[in-house]
Amino acid sequence: MRNLLMTVSYDGTNYYGFQTQPGGNTVQDHLEAAIFGLTGERVKIHGSGRTDAGVHARQQPFNFPTAAKIPVERWCLALNSRLPSDIRVTSAREVPLSFHSRRSAKRKTYRYTINGNRFPDVFQRNYQLHHYGRLDIEAMRLGLAFLVGTHDYTSFASRHSTQPSHVRTIYDARLETETSPDASGSDGQGVIHLYFTGNGFLQHMVRIIVGTMLEIGEGKRKPEDIPLILEARNREAAGPTAESKGLMLWSVEYDETALRL
Amino acid sequence: MRNLLMTVSYDGTNYYGFQTQPGGNTVQDHLEAAIFGLTGERVKIHGSGRTDAGVHARQQPFNFPTAAKIPVERWCLALNSRLPSDIRVTSAREVPLSFHSRRSAKRKTYRYTINGNRFPDVFQRNYQLHHYGRLDIEAMRLGLAFLVGTHDYTSFASRHSTQPSHVRTIYDARLETETSPDASGSDGQGVIHLYFTGNGFLQHMVRIIVGTMLEIGEGKRKPEDIPLILEARNREAAGPTAESKGLMLWSVEYDETALRL
Repeated sequence: MRNLLMTVSYDGTNYYGFQTQPGGNTVQDHLEAAIFGLTGERVKIHGSGRTDAGVHARQQPFNFPTAAKIPVERWCLALNSRLPSDIRVTSAREVPLSFHSRRSAKRKTYRYTINGNRFPDVFQRNYQLHHYGRLDIEAMRLGLAFLVGTHDYTSFASRHSTQPSHVRTIYDARLETETSPDASGSDGQGVIHLYFTGNGFLQHMVRIIVGTMLEIGEGKRKPEDIPLILEARNREAAGPTAESKGLMLWSVEYDETALRL
Repeated sequence: MRNLLMTVSYDGTNYYGFQTQPGGNTVQDHLEAAIFGLTGERVKIHGSGRTDAGVHARQQPFNFPTAAKIPVERWCLALNSRLPSDIRVTSAREVPLSFHSRRSAKRKTYRYTINGNRFPDVFQRNYQLHHYGRLDIEAMRLGLAFLVGTHDYTSFASRHSTQPSHVRTIYDARLETETSPDASGSDGQGVIHLYFTGNGFLQHMVRIIVGTMLEIGEGKRKPEDIPLILEARNREAAGPTAESKGLMLWSVEYDETALRL
């Protein structure tokens, strides 16, 4: 038996998220079907986390046990030939049997992208939230700074969260602007990326943070409201949940020791 | 009567090119339907050029005469609300009645993108040709240099071309590599962009040039074969037509005097 760690990039537009759901059509379902097609094994893969419907991922790790003798360098092409074109396995390696892509994860980074130009960029239309209208970038940066640290993020979690604790640590929350002109012209504030790195994220957490940051950018709230929102421990205290299409799982990090055979 | 010049960006994946065709479903059809919906006028728009099915455009100019009194700054939003999400009008201005977006064009630039990494980038899958396998970039650059100038490009034109002359001028043909890692990982040669600027391009011309450059990159042909291919004035002499999805109309330039009211 081997434990294989792979990474998968997917355009989440047409899927109900990564993890298997009663309704079907998830990235996990497609991966498990491709593995079955290749090996004849009915495996259950472990993703490094769930993603919501419409959320994207860039090289999201997942792992599964297999008795198949296929050499590790052959898996990617063999699975990709069985996957739809918006899901691509991009790497494969053998890891210790103790490795679990979610439980072993040390840090995760998500990126949320806002197009602040007058018109949407047609080529990025499924990967960006279009938001025309002035945003106070410095106020958003101040607001993000208040989120860093170890906090109870109940106010920024879905009411449907089933986690026993809502305490998480955000190591870094930053905003970067991209000034290169895109297909929509440069009439507006350009493209804005928000990056969040933490030890874990609650359901809808990044999207609720982004929805709140947009209200700060629009001047509807102040950056100093963030500590009060955190203290409230109440979903009502925070802003709306931003659309899923702007969100991408950007990277997942492990300790090298957890990966070493 | 006013002559309006607009620009449109479109993801060409789902269209049969820009220009109206008997089969329908072209970008022009959608634009004319949106203009009719807004103004009640049945106009015929003039594009700055045709594009093949599956080819994309970034701010492609088009113009049309209108008697509608709608202020110029209102057109974009009004048309976009009537267009599918993969077509976006990005600018509008009034120009002299003598202006014609194709006949007045001085220079056009096309970009062709090749992903040379091991696996396709899911987020760019409709905008890049995936080509894994070593390409000799320097040989391709040499080959491109032989194409610059004023030549009869019959060998690089579709056999169905109906143009009376196949003489065109290519001002610039260059290759740029992008080294930033993408969703497919950096295992391979990265992303390669080929830019072509000329006074006009024949049917399939850029795609046939790219197909020939790929053969040079693969070592199947030499850069010095280009002058012989040009001399042959025979489509058979050149390489295959590269897939349309990697091609984008990148920019169209006019003399400022032609635009000034």
